[in-house]
Amino acid sequence: MKKIVGLIGGGVIGCGWAARFLLNGWDVQMCDPDPDTPKKVDRSLINARQSLPSISDYRLPTEGQISFYRNISDAVAGVSWIQESVPEHLDVKQAVISEIQSTSNQVIGSSTSGFKPSDLQQCADDPSRIVVTHPFNPVYLLPLVELVTNDATSQEIIQHAMSVIDDVRMYALHLTKEIEAHLADRLLEAVWREALWLVKDKVATTQQVDDAIQFGFGLRWAQMGIFETYRIAGGEAGIRHFLSQFGPALALPWTKLMDAPKLDKNLVSLLSNQLEAQSGHHSVLELEQIRDRNLVGIMRQLKANDWGVGRWLNSHDADEKRKRGLIKSLDQISDLSVPILALDQVVPLTWTDYNGHMTESRYLDVFGKATDRFMEIIGCDKDYIAEGFSYFTTESHIRHLREVKAGQSITINTQLLLGEGKKLHLFHRCYQEEDLVATGEHFLLHVSLKTRRSSPPSEDMLLALERITQAHRFLIYPDGAGAGICKPIMTAHYRD
Amino acid sequence: MKKIVGLIGGGVIGCGWAARFLLNGWDVQMCDPDPDTPKKVDRSLINARQSLPSISDYRLPTEGQISFYRNISDAVAGVSWIQESVPEHLDVKQAVISEIQSTSNQVIGSSTSGFKPSDLQQCADDPSRIVVTHPFNPVYLLPLVELVTNDATSQEIIQHAMSVIDDVRMYALHLTKEIEAHLADRLLEAVWREALWLVKDKVATTQQVDDAIQFGFGLRWAQMGIFETYRIAGGEAGIRHFLSQFGPALALPWTKLMDAPKLDKNLVSLLSNQLEAQSGHHSVLELEQIRDRNLVGIMRQLKANDWGVGRWLNSHDADEKRKRGLIKSLDQISDLSVPILALDQVVPLTWTDYNGHMTESRYLDVFGKATDRFMEIIGCDKDYIAEGFSYFTTESHIRHLREVKAGQSITINTQLLLGEGKKLHLFHRCYQEEDLVATGEHFLLHVSLKTRRSSPPSEDMLLALERITQAHRFLIYPDGAGAGICKPIMTAHYRD
Repeated sequence: MKKIVGLIGGGVIGCGWAARFLLNGWDVQMCDPDPDTPKKVDRSLINARQSLPSISDYRLPTEGQISFYRNISDAVAGVSWIQESVPEHLDVKQAVISEIQSTSNQVIGSSTSGFKPSDLQQCADDPSRIVVTHPFNPVYLLPLVELVTNDATSQEIIQHAMSVIDDVRMYALHLTKEIEAHLADRLLEAVWREALWLVKDKVATTQQVDDAIQFGFGLRWAQMGIFETYRIAGGEAGIRHFLSQFGPALALPWTKLMDAPKLDKNLVSLLSNQLEAQSGHHSVLELEQIRDRNLVGIMRQLKANDWGVGRWLNSHDADEKRKRGLIKSLDQISDLSVPILALDQVVPLTWTDYNGHMTESRYLDVFGKATDRFMEIIGCDKDYIAEGFSYFTTESHIRHLREVKAGQSITINTQLLLGEGKKLHLFHRCYQEEDLVATGEHFLLHVSLKTRRSSPPSEDMLLALERITQAHRFLIYPDGAGAGICKPIMTAHYRD
Repeated sequence: MKKIVGLIGGGVIGCGWAARFLLNGWDVQMCDPDPDTPKKVDRSLINARQSLPSISDYRLPTEGQISFYRNISDAVAGVSWIQESVPEHLDVKQAVISEIQSTSNQVIGSSTSGFKPSDLQQCADDPSRIVVTHPFNPVYLLPLVELVTNDATSQEIIQHAMSVIDDVRMYALHLTKEIEAHLADRLLEAVWREALWLVKDKVATTQQVDDAIQFGFGLRWAQMGIFETYRIAGGEAGIRHFLSQFGPALALPWTKLMDAPKLDKNLVSLLSNQLEAQSGHHSVLELEQIRDRNLVGIMRQLKANDWGVGRWLNSHDADEKRKRGLIKSLDQISDLSVPILALDQVVPLTWTDYNGHMTESRYLDVFGKATDRFMEIIGCDKDYIAEGFSYFTTESHIRHLREVKAGQSITINTQLLLGEGKKLHLFHRCYQEEDLVATGEHFLLHVSLKTRRSSPPSEDMLLALERITQAHRFLIYPDGAGAGICKPIMTAHYRD
């Protein structure tokens, strides 16, 4: 069944939602009076298409379709979620909600960064169907959504909201005690006021404030929050020690706190001029793409470390791969007589090099992942490795036949050339659609992780290898297998 | 000349400084009344040795020596920098400074997170030699140092402080207008108060506050600060638009602001229990090592993207490699008759896999870097690539002979097997000390980046290749070169 969302409001946040839903396979019905809305969505889509698929190790669903409407009633017809992202004025939001509820009884998630659900529920026909689902810029890439509900919200509606957030692969932070500005924006608001004062008082420039963040605590906060960071900062004595040491400073009026600097012409000019000096040589679009590339890289690194947002992304990936049959046991593989599908994913935008294509070490990275997949199939999984046995690669031969670019999909299948005793000889083919782009031939030895020497595999593993050997023995021996580099294979696309 | 630092105070910050200075080749003279100080330094060193070398693409200098003293006067004798990290009480700090100045006229950097230089200078014999050099935890790994000076500080002393900070590879954020808590801690203090309120008021748990950070704005702040982030969030209209849209909210009392929650028994227990539930299954030491692994990964990713802290680290690396002769032009290589030294670095702790050793794709990564180095030597550098020409790898053959672990140093040297016309055939040997751990054989074609087809190199490049060919023709043809995987080479260490 086609999933359709109604988006009311097409600013930076609304356009971010559009890209987020479309790339996750939803159709989007959008309503905004600005005739430039389609252009703005396009701009958001350009960035999103480059970055969002890069954080998943599987292909995203086929992109949805977007249509634009002048009337709210048309935009919300037949949808299974409504997301409101109109300007941050309570009367405007209430009027929009009222208009939506006169024509639809679907749940409305509001992108409000400041108002409580109860503020939005005032004067509404059906308060129970109004929740806050507050995202963060860039909406198409950052996972966080604050889901704020109150006593008017039923469990059923909470579940519905959770499932929509999950379906667009976002992380629902569910708050049941509503306050103005929810959670994250209260923290941000505090920093924002203080940062404005520092610049206004000429203590620091915007560049210095930004450097203090990105060379210091910003690096910590990409992977742990403030509490966990301080728990560690207390050393072995933990948070109690930290609190006793730094608690007294809370009584000092260090921050400017209650005062808010007036955003008069002078302060706006000061900020604007300093930011121009800081990064004016980049356009906003360039900065967006730099930011997204960094976000992709950081999130992928946290995936590699299986921590925080990376751990969460990994568990999402595993669920998705299971659904798509990319994680199957030997018994679940329906046709063993063809090479085994081991990988099906997009080339992340952080995997390219100065030549503008996927860099060579990433081929060995994906071939290594395909080898891991094969090993899981024969029973060399986490448990087996924990028992002290594994396979070590002793040789690899990679042939590059064509280029692949970031954002293109690649698949890898695996043919067993030899699986006897300690020896394992694999041949991976990497395709971009129909084109063979690279091959990876690998020789591995079964080892004991204690002695770090070769050792015989378990009986079960030998039986599994024998089954695959029997199934693969009628496959053609691959072109290029066993060849050395002395006689280069002259089929590479860019050879003349 | 041996560089020596005197460290007064051996808490978490002082021990972090000790590790930072030692790993950058300084000798450390440390003074702290706690007899456990040597143990605490050891603990900090364990973490630092695992992580700090991982963010540089060259070997750090030989580690310095540490000695412990009971008297301040002994600890500061003959040093070229004094770092004070005693508890955060003004009278204690002033007394320590006074004692130091009674015996030494070296510059004192204070790790204070709250006091201004002028606070510390009160009652001092020589106010001109007291500055704030405020680091961030973990001091051995995070680059930021707030250097705060005032009118009492001469240019000469500022330069001296800058050069010490630079020498331990930290980033000096120089503030000349002193205020309590400098810059970063004012921002942190604001967040910290607000976060405590959120937990105390039961709006959120510590886990939820931390999730709001690490799934949201924490990812942004690892690579851009608050001003740059908001400039982008305004879309093409930039910061002025953002300020006009979100400025009015500054007038609202969203944050708790002036109030500070009292850290009574109840609140301390609440925080402590929630943190126990959040990450109590990890010890503090485990969390420190997880954090450091993440920090290394994030900083290395930003290096790969050449942005922010990564851009700064890259420029540091380049300076250092130039100093060590790792970046030389063809003419500067003194002995061309031996394979060319292309790489000399430590295996970062983010490069290992579940088998506990450097993962296979990283071999191709370092061999790729060695190939890049060779290409630079023959003139295929950034400018040449910008003109539209490059080399593409068409085949690689890697042999793994021994294991390498994170933290071990590896070197790679490169032998030219063939450099004729469009063809380039390279053989890299990767050593861990004296042991050959892996070889990489690579066949490349010179290409036009416009047509993406093979094309002849420039005349200059052919001449350079000819020079190396003549020099390398007497080298032994490498064992294993040209071999296919069919006949595995039986010299791998873990083969029996």
